[in-house]
Amino acid sequence: MGAAKTRQTGALRSRNARGEGEKLRGEIIDAAVKVLSALGPEDPFSLRSVAKMAKIAAPSVYIHFADRNVLLLAVLEKLFAEQVAIRATAETDAAKAGGGAWERLLARSVASVRFGLEHPGHYKVLFEGRVVPRLNDPRIASFGRPLLVRSIELIREIPSQPKRVSDDPERLSLLLWSGLHGVVSLRINKPTLDWPPATELAEQITRTIIQPKVRKQSLAPR
Amino acid sequence: MGAAKTRQTGALRSRNARGEGEKLRGEIIDAAVKVLSALGPEDPFSLRSVAKMAKIAAPSVYIHFADRNVLLLAVLEKLFAEQVAIRATAETDAAKAGGGAWERLLARSVASVRFGLEHPGHYKVLFEGRVVPRLNDPRIASFGRPLLVRSIELIREIPSQPKRVSDDPERLSLLLWSGLHGVVSLRINKPTLDWPPATELAEQITRTIIQPKVRKQSLAPR
Repeated sequence: MGAAKTRQTGALRSRNARGEGEKLRGEIIDAAVKVLSALGPEDPFSLRSVAKMAKIAAPSVYIHFADRNVLLLAVLEKLFAEQVAIRATAETDAAKAGGGAWERLLARSVASVRFGLEHPGHYKVLFEGRVVPRLNDPRIASFGRPLLVRSIELIREIPSQPKRVSDDPERLSLLLWSGLHGVVSLRINKPTLDWPPATELAEQITRTIIQPKVRKQSLAPR
Repeated sequence: MGAAKTRQTGALRSRNARGEGEKLRGEIIDAAVKVLSALGPEDPFSLRSVAKMAKIAAPSVYIHFADRNVLLLAVLEKLFAEQVAIRATAETDAAKAGGGAWERLLARSVASVRFGLEHPGHYKVLFEGRVVPRLNDPRIASFGRPLLVRSIELIREIPSQPKRVSDDPERLSLLLWSGLHGVVSLRINKPTLDWPPATELAEQITRTIIQPKVRKQSLAPR
């Protein structure tokens, strides 16, 4: 009975500790995102700077992340999961407004560009070699895959003009990604130029690559 | 007469010195380009590192460039002038092969993407915020302007399909630039993904945005 109690107490303790640990782990990842987003072109990314941002002692970071690269991988995983969620929300809203595959794809495009403009630091971490060149982990490639997969699915559903540049939805989704990335990246990196609204460019790029046959009634309330 | 001789000698000396100075100035800029191209995500860019690369003493750099930013501006000016030359050569080749405005624009597009893939370090300096965020000089915006201006001129000349996403050649040139930049930037920054050939994507992006009415005979020898 004493042993059982100890085991039980131990289990409870361990559960608490794990809960606390998960919480701290999340806080460290959040702090790392903040550090990365604010990084100047020559600032180092160190676990020490993350600990400072999270207001914890440096050794606490090492309990959760063996080294910098393990933490950077967790950061990427989290930011890509957020991208999946942001675009799913945009798509759901478009669907609620009566939008078909085209309107949903467009909503995703605009949401991704808007995110980039509002969070240029995060965007650079995700898509501009702010982090990836520091890592050498094959899992990276899988983090963003759901974004492309959903884009391919929607493109497959969209009734199109006869003159699309390719019949392959996967190719079209890569072209679309390139176009949208170009809009955000140039807007961020060439701030001295006089740009038209990026969301307008994003819609035009999406429209020209996908060439949808838009049925106007699809946006009418059902 | 003695005074005249002195003036003459002085003038000669000064001419020689200027010639040497120009040569050294060019070597320093070349060294700076090399340093920037090879820069890791956390390496600092210092005049000291440039002097080391150029194999000269640090004070010699300061004779020509008051500070880091003056040198960075000269680097950008040189690299953009090179872009103008590279694209002009591509265009001339296309014209020699009998190409009209469309083939010339396409040749420029492909040349710019090929440059980015072959010189990712230079490309990042030019278009990816490797340098520009460090500078605050309005002249930067003018360096790349000839590239856009030529693109607009060619777009204006291209007979097109009725369904271009915009009638404004300036807007089309921004969309084209965004698309091409996206192709190079993603290819550079997402090396773990399995990309189709970037020049193929570049041609598809250019074709879909510009929607040319291609007259096949334009490529036949005249």
